Formats: sequence, C-alpha cells, structure tokens
Amino acid sequence: MKLLKVDTVNEARSKLIDCCAGTMLQTEMRSLLDAAGCILAEDIYSKENIPPYRRSIMDGYAVRSRDLGAAGDMIPTMLKVIGEVLLGSDSSDLKVEPGCCVYVPTGGYVPDGADAVVMIEYCEPFGAGMLAVSKSASPGENIVSVGEDVAEGDMLLPKGRKLRPQDLGVLAACGVTDIPVFVPWRVTVISTGDELVSPDKMPGPGQIRDINTYTIASRSMAEGFEVIRTVSVKDEREALVSAIETAKADSDLVVMSGGSSQGKKDMTADLIDEAADHGVLTHGIAAKPGKPTITGFDEESRTLFIGLPGHPAAALMVYEQVLINLWRGLICREKERTLKAKITVNVPSAPGRMTFQLVKLSGGDIPEAAPVFARSGMISPVSEADGYFVMTENQEGIRPGEMVDVFLWK
Amino acid sequence: MKLLKVDTVNEARSKLIDCCAGTMLQTEMRSLLDAAGCILAEDIYSKENIPPYRRSIMDGYAVRSRDLGAAGDMIPTMLKVIGEVLLGSDSSDLKVEPGCCVYVPTGGYVPDGADAVVMIEYCEPFGAGMLAVSKSASPGENIVSVGEDVAEGDMLLPKGRKLRPQDLGVLAACGVTDIPVFVPWRVTVISTGDELVSPDKMPGPGQIRDINTYTIASRSMAEGFEVIRTVSVKDEREALVSAIETAKADSDLVVMSGGSSQGKKDMTADLIDEAADHGVLTHGIAAKPGKPTITGFDEESRTLFIGLPGHPAAALMVYEQVLINLWRGLICREKERTLKAKITVNVPSAPGRMTFQLVKLSGGDIPEAAPVFARSGMISPVSEADGYFVMTENQEGIRPGEMVDVFLWK
Repeated sequence: MKLLKVDTVNEARSKLIDCCAGTMLQTEMRSLLDAAGCILAEDIYSKENIPPYRRSIMDGYAVRSRDLGAAGDMIPTMLKVIGEVLLGSDSSDLKVEPGCCVYVPTGGYVPDGADAVVMIEYCEPFGAGMLAVSKSASPGENIVSVGEDVAEGDMLLPKGRKLRPQDLGVLAACGVTDIPVFVPWRVTVISTGDELVSPDKMPGPGQIRDINTYTIASRSMAEGFEVIRTVSVKDEREALVSAIETAKADSDLVVMSGGSSQGKKDMTADLIDEAADHGVLTHGIAAKPGKPTITGFDEESRTLFIGLPGHPAAALMVYEQVLINLWRGLICREKERTLKAKITVNVPSAPGRMTFQLVKLSGGDIPEAAPVFARSGMISPVSEADGYFVMTENQEGIRPGEMVDVFLWK
Repeated sequence: MKLLKVDTVNEARSKLIDCCAGTMLQTEMRSLLDAAGCILAEDIYSKENIPPYRRSIMDGYAVRSRDLGAAGDMIPTMLKVIGEVLLGSDSSDLKVEPGCCVYVPTGGYVPDGADAVVMIEYCEPFGAGMLAVSKSASPGENIVSVGEDVAEGDMLLPKGRKLRPQDLGVLAACGVTDIPVFVPWRVTVISTGDELVSPDKMPGPGQIRDINTYTIASRSMAEGFEVIRTVSVKDEREALVSAIETAKADSDLVVMSGGSSQGKKDMTADLIDEAADHGVLTHGIAAKPGKPTITGFDEESRTLFIGLPGHPAAALMVYEQVLINLWRGLICREKERTLKAKITVNVPSAPGRMTFQLVKLSGGDIPEAAPVFARSGMISPVSEADGYFVMTENQEGIRPGEMVDVFLWK
C-alpha cells in the first residue's frame, strides 16, 4: 500500500479520474423510450428542418393576405374555396391563386401561394364554393414556417443531458431514434461486519441491522446505475476476498460498506489494495463526517472501489460527493440544480475538512434551511432532512442569513 | 354525452376524483429494494427502540464517569480492563464495576455499569491489564441511548412519502421489510392521426412525426407508472374502438393523444363517451394552452380516460396538472417542492383561464425565470425550458420582480 494519506474530497475524486477516465465509460445505442432518463453520450444535431413544410396552427383557411386588405366585420371579402388539405395526405398539388383559398386543419400543410391562415371563426361559407372572410390577415399569420421549430444543423441536445420527456419529444420530432447514451455502471454493494444482521432479523445484543446496503443500493439506482448484486459478508478474510473477486468480474463499481471501527477500516483498505492493480488511492478523506473513506482502482478489470464510512449519513453524503460526482464529471452531466436556501442559525465547520451539514427546509420565497444534527450512526435525522449543504475546507462556518446551495436528497 | 361543458382545471380533476377515488388505488407489499421510489400506502410506525441497546459511537473504553473525576493529562486515572466487547457477539454478561473498564469498538454494545465511553486516544495500556485514562468523562458521553434514534411507537414515515434511499435506511433499521406501497397505474398511450408517422420515418407533405407518444409515455414512467403499451392508430373509428377496448381490459389509464383540429377532438370525445360508463366528464378545460382536453371514467373496468391536446407543450403540462396531480392527490403524496423564482418581464395571463407559462431559469441567490414562448406545436422551446409556472383563472398576469413557483420538468 502506498503511503497512507488523507486527501481532500476533490483530491480523492481527481486521483480516481486520473486513473479511470479513459476506461470507465462505454456508450450504447438505445431506442427512444429505452433512453428515457439516460445520459446522452454525444451532442445531437438536427439533420432536418422542423417543420419540413409550412404548417397551420389553426383550423382555418389558407389565403393570400393581399386579397384581404379590405376585409372586416362590416364588409367581408369573398374568396373562392378551391380545395381542402387533408391531414396526412399529400396536398402539395394545391396552389392558392389570387382570390382563392383552401381549408387547412390545425397542423396541416399550407399550400403554395398562401401566406396566411385565417381562423375558421372569421370565415362563413356563402354557397357556390364561396367563403366570406371578415378579417384581414398579416403575412405569416397562423403559420409556422419551415425550420422555425428546429433548423437543419441546430444542436438539439448536448452531451451529458439527462433525457427528460420533452427531450425525447425533440428527438422524435427530428427523427433521431437511435440514441447514443452512456452505459450505466454496474454496481456490487458488499456490506461487511459480524455485527450486521439482515433487516428482517431481530438483532441480538451487539448486533445491528444492515442499513447501508439499502441506502447505497437505492441511491445507485436513483442515479441510473444497475445494481447487479448486494451481498452481506462476515468479517472473514477469505469470504471477503472471494466476494470481491466475484464482484470484480462483472462490476464497474464495488462499494464496500461496513463498520466504522478502526480495525474494520484497516481490513477494507488491505482488501482493496490487494484487489486493485493501482492499489489504494485514497485512505481517509478530509471530510466531516466521512473520514474513513477508502478508494482504489483496478485497471485490468476496469473496477472502481470505494470503502464507505459505516455511519449511514456519512456513507450517503460521501457516496454522492466522491463517487456520484465522479460519474457525473466523466459523463459531462450538466450540473444538478441545487436549491438556494437561507441558513437560520450559526453552523460551525470543521477546520481543514469539507463539512457536510444536513438541513431541513421550510417554505417562503427564499427557502430557509435549518441544520439537522445526526449523532453518529443515527438514521432517522437523515430521513427527516431534505438534503445537505457543503462547507469547503477553508470556510469558517456559516452565519445566519447567509445563502447556501442545498443538495436535495434523491 | 352530457351537456358539453368547459371546466376549470380544478373542476376537471374534482370530477375525476369524485368518480374514481374509491376504486382506482390498490396497494401491494414490496421488499426494501423493490420499494425504492415507490409511494408509501400507510403511515409506518416503529415497533422497536433503535438502538435497542446502548451503543458506543467511538472506539474506546466503557467506563463509570464517576471513576474519572480526577483524570487529566498530568495525572491519569488507572482502571482495570475486565474485558472486550466484540461486534456481533453477545457481550451482555459483561458488567463494569467501580474501578473497571471494558474495550468497546464503534457501534458496540455498552455494558451495564458503564455510563460513558472514553475515546481510545486518551487511553494507554499500562501492563497487567491496567489502563491509564487521561481524560474525565461526562455521563452519557459517546453513547447513543436506547431509543435515541427511533423510539418504539414513533412514526417513521408518512403515507404518501416517495421512498428515498435514506427512507429505506430507516425502514431497514427498524426491521420493516414488507412495505405497503401503492401499485403504480398501468398506462396505455394511444396516439391517433392519419398524419402521424413513426419517428424513424421521413414524413411526407402533410405528415408529422409522432411526438406525444414519447413525451407522455416517458413522463408516465418518470412518475412511476407502468407503460404497458403504446399504439399508433389511424383515424378510423373501428380501429380506434378496438384499441380502446384492448386498453380497457388491462389499463388503469388510457391516454389518447392526437391532433388538435376540431374534428379530431370530437371523435376522441365520442369514443371516450362510448367506452366509459360514466361518459365524458369534461369536454374542454379553461386552460391556455390545453383547451381541447377530454376526460372520462369507466367504473366497471376501472379505467380513466384522458384525451390530451395535440400540441406537445400543452399535452405535457395538462397531463401533469390534471392527471398526475389527480394521482398525487389520491395517494396523499406530499406536495412536490417547486422552485421559487423571480419573473424578469411582464407575462400576460389569459383571463378566465388557467395559464401555463414555460420558463427558463438562470442562477443567482434568487433564481430568475424568463418566459419561453412556444408557438403551437413547437417542441424545441419545450426542451429548452426548465419548467413552467401556473397563473390561476383570476390572476391578471405577472409583473417583473414578482415571485412564482416553477414546476421543474422531470
């Protein structure tokens, strides 16, 4: 193992990026609905104009605006109806000559010659194929022009975009149906500890139910990762080595979560050091809570390792700030919108360490964030909180009235 | 069909609730990880104290604080080490008598007799089973007491909570592993229109690629609904009736999405009226955009129907405000946190109608929301927007500097 060194959160992430940036991302093509919520792996440009033809936004009549200069309530202008555009059929042979008009439904093709659509409300059939129009029209009125929605060559969506429903709508509109997205990491969560029992068991004296398997696995799923395995292993070296080897074979990421005692942490560090050809990269981070965090990388099997603190709050926040931020950096994901909130009381920071502070939010035009304090190992305050904010290593606490960026729990 | 009536958005939702509240919700039991992101169907209370025993939050020695009254850097107090608590084993026979102490790892059981834990840093083995302790301790120091995290009878999580990672952590900690959640609605999306072509086809003159199937299906998925079928049907009565009957048999919700022309809307209304034993409930809502919205309910097959406006922006916003809000109301889901933002320019409202206004957000302590205007049928502005806000029927527009609640796109 290299010289043990406590890194800042940013150093820990940088070390991982330096090792793994070239190898840990794969892309695949997905169809529209299968790409929902996935992360776009390339900038996408339109190869077409949308709409590809002039489209009416109303049920009405396509007219030549010049013909209607004098049209009004009192003296309607009479036009000859020469046809009707049918939705979905080729009406491109229709041509609106002076004094003529063509019926067009909403969304319909506007025939050549016409330069405006008059809403049906202002038109009255007058017999013998004639129409009385009681309103003038400006050129372009009620028409979406070619390429007005999307012009050929426009960038539709940037690499790193998490595909939302309306993003799929844009892709569908432009005929982009093979969508390059990043393959989500496959994750194994290994919880270790003789004291851990499954949540469906009643813990005896000195035992505790496994929490981190469930928080870390579901947080991974919320990020889009594929949790391929959760395993609980006793503190026996052989069993742990075997679980790690199995995980290395098919996982991009192995998350180890166990107790917070020093002995446990040393064992986790040893195991990661043996399993990873780059060895342990970070052994301890300058964070409060979250110090006992260990990272490593195995290049041959392309596997990231992280050993998380045992306390559930610390484990979740470190997992987000180190590992999920690493993923988001690699995939160029747009920065998550944090919520700006006003701090209500003095909140101390831990000098020289990044401090994660749980908060509960209350309403108002500017939301207020009240700190929630969770003693080590407690879970109910974490669930009570709406999220947390971060104070950097050099920040000397926060005073009432200052604004912070709150990371909302997923 | 009942008398055609334009309803407000709230009236439309109320009519649906009145018909369907008793029948449209089912619950099921899920295991912890399968419940991630689901909606809790009952308030959950703890049947246990957590922790069930006194737990140390440090690696250290369990002591009687009274023994250490005089302990300090200069003159340590000597205690006899009578044992060690092992994580995961039954250490309940250990008892700390006066002058004695017991080693306890982080998370370990604190034996009877002890009332504090001294961190290992302040303790030095002195040979012959003796320990030099160079710090006094207050009663309770470094100990989490029984029930301090969760007390027996505490409400853990309320009905309607969308289960986040740390919520699963609380349930795991308390041994709640059969979790009652609402069964997500099963959805069929039917897109209708002779003019619609699949996104992978090149539209001819008068044709348009199907957008709403993809936006509405993926928005449904983002809400947790199960999209069981998306079908595209030509405007032929028989084919539509058949698609609706198939959908009724296995769907909770049938979403019809087609063109915006009046003829299309009349056909959709007729079809829903025939398929639903309660008939059409709302035919047109007082919303801008979104007027051509139709709802219905079939009690026998327990199927909700909604015919959405054809324009993608209108379809998405109406679907959220009418249908998804209906679902959230039924499941008692906690109100989604909207983002407070300051409007930068005058935004007019449509008198007597609820107005949905797309906005793009920019940063700052108080985010600023600039309106995004999407002409009918355009999709790229919808993707460019970060969300939208709502002006009520009686509201007369928004002036620069006013605050609004922005619904962020999913």
